Amino acid sequence: MARQLRAVRTRQALVDAAATEFDRSGYAGAALNRICRAAGITMGALTFHFSTKGELAAAVQAKGQTVTRAALAALPSGPAPALHRAIDATLELARLLEEEPTVRSAARLSRERPDGELAWTTSWITAVQDLFSQAYRDGQLHAAVRPEDLAMLSRFLILGAEHRARAAGEQSVEEPREASAVEEVRQMWDIIQRGICGPSSLAPS
Amino acid sequence: MARQLRAVRTRQALVDAAATEFDRSGYAGAALNRICRAAGITMGALTFHFSTKGELAAAVQAKGQTVTRAALAALPSGPAPALHRAIDATLELARLLEEEPTVRSAARLSRERPDGELAWTTSWITAVQDLFSQAYRDGQLHAAVRPEDLAMLSRFLILGAEHRARAAGEQSVEEPREASAVEEVRQMWDIIQRGICGPSSLAPS
Repeated sequence: MARQLRAVRTRQALVDAAATEFDRSGYAGAALNRICRAAGITMGALTFHFSTKGELAAAVQAKGQTVTRAALAALPSGPAPALHRAIDATLELARLLEEEPTVRSAARLSRERPDGELAWTTSWITAVQDLFSQAYRDGQLHAAVRPEDLAMLSRFLILGAEHRARAAGEQSVEEPREASAVEEVRQMWDIIQRGICGPSSLAPS
Repeated sequence: MARQLRAVRTRQALVDAAATEFDRSGYAGAALNRICRAAGITMGALTFHFSTKGELAAAVQAKGQTVTRAALAALPSGPAPALHRAIDATLELARLLEEEPTVRSAARLSRERPDGELAWTTSWITAVQDLFSQAYRDGQLHAAVRPEDLAMLSRFLILGAEHRARAAGEQSVEEPREASAVEEVRQMWDIIQRGICGPSSLAPS
């Protein structure tokens, strides 16, 4: 039992260290020896648990999906209107992207290693689209706005949040910023809810 | 003269081949020998023109910026309302991201190698924000919508367009799709112009 517990802990430490490394350097740039050093584990132990870099990446992606599903499931389910719950779900995703290296890493890896089942988006897109569909049925949405378009818009915002969160972690000189990714996504939804056109604006083309 | 012309052509062929390689594999994953092979140029000639991978990447980024600035400058300047011109500018950026490997590569490299001057965003963000500011002054925007918020929203949409364009090029199984990135960004602006809230919706939180 003690040996099994140790093996589980070693595995977890490797997945956490790998998440940080894949998040920073991407799949191609990630170095297994840096992951070992960060986890305090020998290369022999790493290859015992994960025989390839791909296996390790898949474990990180699976953990990122699990963390995401759990976080969305833990959000309050009512009595707030569905539109607000949909938006709150995307804010929770932005928070995860800022605070959870496994989630940020899963998002990056699922672009760099396309694989339908491991794609991070699959862990949240259905839940978010279902909430927008509910909002539509409840009359909260403009009749011309389709729930699937809002799911697409959410993907764009979440992708933006991922990159803003990563840039903040790296203190990029490119984009000095004060607001968190969560705050930025909230601002975008405030604009999107109201629409941007003023009184003298022409009808949308 | 003939030798100088040949040198310019060699340099251009290397930058174009490097753009495709950086776009696909990222900075860390890009292989100089694949770039040489694609350009039909020896490694010796590559290192004569670019002594480091970083120099080659900087040349790709500079070309991506030049292409972007030229494309925006070539858009018609009137008499369309400034809001429509701002949106058209973002659609042109989405088109470049779909069709121009140097631009897509510049966008990717400027995230992977943070450097203020080479950041691809700097080649368009001021022009786009100026158009939104003009739209604001012309009363085309809702009074509560700030031009800088729309510049931020544009960044989110353009980042999304970049990834959609790249995923389409790789024919990712993750995201089967029919619409082009340009068409998707246009759909998003249609929604954003109108706003999403229906009659029974509560006021934005």
